Amino acid sequence: MLPTLQSLFFPRSVAVIGASRRPLTIGYRLIKNLIDFGYTGAIYPVNPKGGIVKNFRAYPSILEIPDEVDLAHIVIPAKFVPQAVEDCGKKGVKVVIINSAGFKEVGEEGAKLERQVVEVAKRYGVRVFGPNCQGIINTDPESRAYCNFTFTYPLEGNISIIAQSGGVGEVINQRLNELGVGVRFYASNGNAADISIPEIIKNYAADEKTAVIIVHIENLADPKEFYEVVSNVTPQKPVLAMKTGRTEEGSRAVASHTGGMVGADIATEVLLRKAGCVVFRDQEELCQAAIAFSMQPVPKGDRVGMITNTGGPAIIATDEVIEAGLSMPPLSDDSIKRLKEALHPAAVAANPIDVLATGTPEHWETAVDVLINDKNIDSILITFVTPFFVDTVGCARKFAAKVEEARKAGKPLIMNVMTDRRQWKETLSIIHKAGIPEYEFAETAARALVALCRYGQIRRRETEPPKQFDDVNSDAVKEVLDAAANRGAKHLSQAETFRLLEAYRIPCARWVTVQAEEQLTSAAEKVGFPAVLKVDDPIRALHKSEVGAVVLGIKDEEELLDAARRLWHHFEGAPLLLQEMVEADREVIIGAAKQPNMGHLILFGLGGIVVELLKDVAMELTPVSRGEAKAMLRAIKSAPLLFGFRNIKAADTETLAELVERVSRLVETFPQISELDINPLKVSAAPAVPLAVDARVILE
Amino acid sequence: MLPTLQSLFFPRSVAVIGASRRPLTIGYRLIKNLIDFGYTGAIYPVNPKGGIVKNFRAYPSILEIPDEVDLAHIVIPAKFVPQAVEDCGKKGVKVVIINSAGFKEVGEEGAKLERQVVEVAKRYGVRVFGPNCQGIINTDPESRAYCNFTFTYPLEGNISIIAQSGGVGEVINQRLNELGVGVRFYASNGNAADISIPEIIKNYAADEKTAVIIVHIENLADPKEFYEVVSNVTPQKPVLAMKTGRTEEGSRAVASHTGGMVGADIATEVLLRKAGCVVFRDQEELCQAAIAFSMQPVPKGDRVGMITNTGGPAIIATDEVIEAGLSMPPLSDDSIKRLKEALHPAAVAANPIDVLATGTPEHWETAVDVLINDKNIDSILITFVTPFFVDTVGCARKFAAKVEEARKAGKPLIMNVMTDRRQWKETLSIIHKAGIPEYEFAETAARALVALCRYGQIRRRETEPPKQFDDVNSDAVKEVLDAAANRGAKHLSQAETFRLLEAYRIPCARWVTVQAEEQLTSAAEKVGFPAVLKVDDPIRALHKSEVGAVVLGIKDEEELLDAARRLWHHFEGAPLLLQEMVEADREVIIGAAKQPNMGHLILFGLGGIVVELLKDVAMELTPVSRGEAKAMLRAIKSAPLLFGFRNIKAADTETLAELVERVSRLVETFPQISELDINPLKVSAAPAVPLAVDARVILE
Repeated sequence: MLPTLQSLFFPRSVAVIGASRRPLTIGYRLIKNLIDFGYTGAIYPVNPKGGIVKNFRAYPSILEIPDEVDLAHIVIPAKFVPQAVEDCGKKGVKVVIINSAGFKEVGEEGAKLERQVVEVAKRYGVRVFGPNCQGIINTDPESRAYCNFTFTYPLEGNISIIAQSGGVGEVINQRLNELGVGVRFYASNGNAADISIPEIIKNYAADEKTAVIIVHIENLADPKEFYEVVSNVTPQKPVLAMKTGRTEEGSRAVASHTGGMVGADIATEVLLRKAGCVVFRDQEELCQAAIAFSMQPVPKGDRVGMITNTGGPAIIATDEVIEAGLSMPPLSDDSIKRLKEALHPAAVAANPIDVLATGTPEHWETAVDVLINDKNIDSILITFVTPFFVDTVGCARKFAAKVEEARKAGKPLIMNVMTDRRQWKETLSIIHKAGIPEYEFAETAARALVALCRYGQIRRRETEPPKQFDDVNSDAVKEVLDAAANRGAKHLSQAETFRLLEAYRIPCARWVTVQAEEQLTSAAEKVGFPAVLKVDDPIRALHKSEVGAVVLGIKDEEELLDAARRLWHHFEGAPLLLQEMVEADREVIIGAAKQPNMGHLILFGLGGIVVELLKDVAMELTPVSRGEAKAMLRAIKSAPLLFGFRNIKAADTETLAELVERVSRLVETFPQISELDINPLKVSAAPAVPLAVDARVILE
Repeated sequence: MLPTLQSLFFPRSVAVIGASRRPLTIGYRLIKNLIDFGYTGAIYPVNPKGGIVKNFRAYPSILEIPDEVDLAHIVIPAKFVPQAVEDCGKKGVKVVIINSAGFKEVGEEGAKLERQVVEVAKRYGVRVFGPNCQGIINTDPESRAYCNFTFTYPLEGNISIIAQSGGVGEVINQRLNELGVGVRFYASNGNAADISIPEIIKNYAADEKTAVIIVHIENLADPKEFYEVVSNVTPQKPVLAMKTGRTEEGSRAVASHTGGMVGADIATEVLLRKAGCVVFRDQEELCQAAIAFSMQPVPKGDRVGMITNTGGPAIIATDEVIEAGLSMPPLSDDSIKRLKEALHPAAVAANPIDVLATGTPEHWETAVDVLINDKNIDSILITFVTPFFVDTVGCARKFAAKVEEARKAGKPLIMNVMTDRRQWKETLSIIHKAGIPEYEFAETAARALVALCRYGQIRRRETEPPKQFDDVNSDAVKEVLDAAANRGAKHLSQAETFRLLEAYRIPCARWVTVQAEEQLTSAAEKVGFPAVLKVDDPIRALHKSEVGAVVLGIKDEEELLDAARRLWHHFEGAPLLLQEMVEADREVIIGAAKQPNMGHLILFGLGGIVVELLKDVAMELTPVSRGEAKAMLRAIKSAPLLFGFRNIKAADTETLAELVERVSRLVETFPQISELDINPLKVSAAPAVPLAVDARVILE
C-alpha cells in the first residue's frame, strides 16, 4: 500500500459522522460492521444529539474527539456534507468516506455540491472517497477495517477488488466468500469525486499481499489516467476486468445510473484490453478465474494437457479449450511410453489421458508427472470424478504432492472435481489445502485455465512505443485544418482530405481538382484513363453514389467531358475531382473516431457491405503501435484474404499495418479530427502499394 | 410412464447378479443405494457363493429366487453376461440393467458379445438397459428405486434426466441437488443396446409428473428415431438438450469414449434444434434454466420487463437480454403513471424500473403489478439486492403474493437475489416456497429467462409438412443417376448436374454442350452473348478456375472459337459447356451433404470467399419445409443483402426459399446423392429469378 491511501485502507481510528442508535440505519451499521469484523483501531461515533450509539458514547462534533482521527465516514444528508468535511479538515482527518447520496448522480445541483465538497477537502488536504458509495474493506489482521455498510465479511486472501458499482462489487465479494476464497481489499468508490479507481489500483499493485486485482467498470471517468496506471500494473499483476453496459440499452441504463455518457461502451472494453486487462463479460466466470489466478502460475504457452477418469466431462473441457483457441497437442513419445507402462491396458495414453474410472492414486501420479515433464505441454487440466470404489483421498494426496512440482515447472494445474461435496470432504480438503483451484463443472475449470492463458498471452505480447514518423508534413495538415476551421467547415472536401493523407504519406490514387471545362484535358493527362469523376462537395455529395455524384470507368476525353457536364448540371458550381480508377481485388477500411477523453478509436476491416453487415472489424485505441496494427490485421476473421488464401495472393500487410499506424499518428497529432475514414483503401497482391480512393474527414 | 418401461422405473423387486459383501464394489453399492434411498420393493442379492450380502441372504442363482423379479442388475464380468441374461429370461425377469463394461466400447469383440446379449434377451422378451451404464433413479415415493451405483440422492421433483454420458448426467444431477431442486427420473443408459434414449424420452413425456426433460447426447445412435419421438414431445413439454463433442478434438474424444463416429457434430445440434429442443452448451446454464422451466410458465413473447433496486446488476441483465435478441420495450403510459404515483420521486419509472435501494414492499408490489398488467410485457425479471435497512421479508411476501397472478397472466417471473444466503434465510425461503426461481447472478437469471423465451419461440413456430412438388420430373433425375451409376462415376458432369436441377425446376443459366467446333455456332445461338465456356470434365476440371478450365465474358463467335480451341488444347477430348453469362449483384450457395443416418444437412449462405471465411451460413436437416427455408434465409447475418439494405433492392426471397426446399426434396428423394452444391446461384433484385450457374453433384 502506498502512503497516499494508507489512511483509507489502514486507518488507525474511524469516526462516523451521522452515527445512529437505530439498527436499520447506515450510521449504526458502519459501527456494527467495524466491531463485528474485528477492527483493531478506535471508533468514534459522532452525533449532535450525543447519547450512546451501539456501545460508544457519541461525540456531538468531530471537533470534540480528543484523539487523532484518520478516517471519517459521513452519512448525513448531502446538503450538510460540505460543513462536515470542513470540520474534518479542521480536525486533521486524513480521509473521508462519504456514503451519503444526493450528489452528481442526481443532476447539476448535486454535481455542484460535489465540486464544493472536493474544494473544501482540498483546502485542508483531506482525501475524499465517494460520495454515493459503499466504502472499503481490509482483511489484513493488522487492521480489519470494515468501513462499509454491506453485509459480506470476506475471508483473508490475496484478491483485491475495486468496483464502480457497489451492487456488482458486492455480488463478486459475496460469491468469493461463498466459494471459501479470501479477499485482501475491497473498495467501491461510487461517484469517485477525488480518489479514483486508477489510484486504488495503483495502491493494490504496490501491495505485496495482493496477487490478483478485480476491477468493475461502468464508465471511465478519466480513461487516460486509467490506461497509464493499469498498463504499468498488468505486466506484473493480473487485472481481471469487467465492463458492464455494452448494449445500447445497457449503456442507457448505466447513464441513468451514474450520469455517464452513452455510446462509449465499445471503446472502454478496447481500452481495458489495450491496458493488458483480462476482460470478462460474466461475473461468475470472473470470480472463478480469480481463484485460479490467486493460486496458480501463469502458463508460458497455450498447449493444454488433460487427464480424466470419465469421458463425458473431458469432452466438454476439450470443446471449451479448443473453441477458445488453445491447443491440445499430442504427447511426446516418451510420455506415451511411460503412460502405457503405468496405466491399465484399456486406458488412453494420448491427450486427453484417460486413466479410467478405476484409476488408482499411482495411475494419477504418473499421469500428472508425465504432463509436468512433457515439453509439449504448458498447463494441466484434470477432470476427476470420485468413484466410491477408488481411494480418492489417496488420489488427492498425489495431486497435492505433484502441484508443487508443476508450479516449479511454471505449469498451472486446474481441476474439475465431480463429487458429492458433503460426502467427499476429506478429498476436497486435501485439494484445497494444496492450493489447487477445483471446479464443479468441466466448463468452469476449462474457462479458468483459458483466462490464465489469456493473461500469459498478454504478458508475452511485444510492447513497443508507437513510431514517430519523421517523413510526414505536419505543416501541410495544419494548413488544411486551419483553413477549414477559418471558414467554419465541419467536413473537409475530398481534395483537402487527400492532401492531408498525402502529407502523412498515406498513398492515394492520383487526383486533380477540376473547376472548369478547360481544365479537363490537362487533368486527364495527369490522371490517365480509365478515370473516375466525382463531385467534391462534402455537403451536397456526402453519399456520392447515392446522389449520383460520381461517374466511374471514364475511358477517354469525350466521356470525361460528357460526365463533367452532367455532374455540373446537377451540382452547379461544385468543384469536381478527377481520379485515377484503381483496379484491385480487395478493399479495406481504416477508420478513426474520437472518443470522449480517450483519444481515437482506430478501426480496421475489409471493405464492402458484407463485412459491414458481419461486423468483422478490429479496433484499437490511439496510439497504435506497429505490433498492435499487425495484430488488428490478423484479428479479423477475413484476415486470410490479406495474408493469402487459396488463389488469393498475400497483400503487402507490412505496409497496411504501417498505414494503420500513420492514421493513428495523424489523428493523435490533430485531435480536432473527430472522424476520419479511408473507405475504401484499394489493396492488390504484394508488392503493389495500397491506395486510398475515397476518404472522409469530419472536424470537431 | 408407459407400460413398456414400467418395470425399469417402477420395479416391484430388484435382483443384483454379482452382489458382493465388499463395500467398495458396485455389487454392494447397488444394494446399499436401494436401501438408503428407501426403495419400497424386495431386494434379492445373487452370488454363486451365497452368504450374507449387506443384510440379505444371497441366492446362489437368480433361478432360485422364490418370488417374481421385475428388474435384475448384472454386474459380473462381460463374458458371463449372456448366460446371466439367459437365466433372467428363464426366471421371467422383465428388464436387466447391465452395469458391466467390456462391450461395444472396447471394440469388435465386445460389440459381438453385446449383440449376443441382446439376441438372448429378445428370445425371452427381456428388455436390456445398458450395458456399460449407470442405471436409473426414480424419486416417486411409491417406488424410490435407486438402481444406480452413483452417489447423489436426488430430491423429489418434476425434472427428468436422460444422459448418454454418466459423468455428465451425474454432474447435472449433483448440481440440481446442491441447488435444492428436485428430480423425478434419472437414467444413463451407456451403450444403449436395446432401450434407447428416445424410448426413455417417450416415457418421460407420458409421465404426468415430469414437467421438464433434460437430455445429454454425445452422438445419436438413430437420429431418425430421436427426431420422430422428440419432435412430438417438444410441443407439449420442454426438452433441454446438450450435445458435447462439438470441436473436432472433442468429437475425437467422444469417438474414443463411446465408439461413435467423428464429424457428425454439427448435424446433431441442428437435429436437436429441428426437433424443438432448447439447446445448451453449458451444464450450469442448463441446470439453471431447468429450474425456471420447472417452476414458471412459458412466455407468450420476447418482451421483457425488468425491476431493480440496484443499478449495476440490472445493467448486466439488460446486456444479456438484449444480446440474446429479446427486447425491453417502453412501458405503457398507464404503467408509467402508476409508477410515478407510487414510487419515490428519484425512482426510475421506465423499463428497467428502478425502485431504488430503499424500495419498500409496497413499492415492489406496485412495480410487479404494473408489469403483470402492462400489455407491452411478456415476462418479468427482477434483480433484487437485500439492503439491511429494508424489510426484505416483507418484499419477499409481496413477490410470493404476486407470482400467482403473474402465472395466471402467463408471464414468468424470475429473480436475481443478491444477498448473504446464510443471513437472509427467511427472505429466500419465502421466495423458494412461492416457486420463484432465484439466482445469485444477474447473468444467470437473465439466461434462464432467455431459455424460457427460446422455448416460447419454438412453441410458436409454424410447422408445416414439407411440400411434395408435383411439377418435378423424377424420371429424368433417375435416368441421369442410373447412367452415372452404370459407368461407376462418383462425380456427375456439369451437363448431368444441370439436367438434374432442371428436372427439379431449379432454374439454371442457359447452357449447351459442345463436343466439336462445328457445334459452336448453333450453341452460341441458343445461349447468346456474353457467354462462358467451361470444360465439362468432373475429374480433370473439378476446380475449374484453378486449372484454367473456364473462359469468362466471351463476347462474339470469334472469341468463342478461340476459347474453345484453347480449352481443347489443354483438355483434349473433353466436352465443353457453353453457358449464358449471368450478371447479378449477389450470389448465394445452396448445399446438401449426406449425414450418417440423418438424411442430408442443407446449407444456405451468401456466396463469395468472405462469407466462406466468416462462416455465415444457416443449416437445416432434410426435409426442409418452406417455413424452415425462410428461417434459414433470415438466420444468416448477411440476410439484409437478400431482404433489402441501403441501395440494395430485395431479391425474390420467396423463390429462393422455394429453391432451398426443392434441393431438400431432391436429395431426400435420391439419397444416393452424397453431396450437392449450387455455387453460385446468381441473385438479382426481384422479380428476377435466381439462376444456378455452377453446381456439383457427388454420388455415394
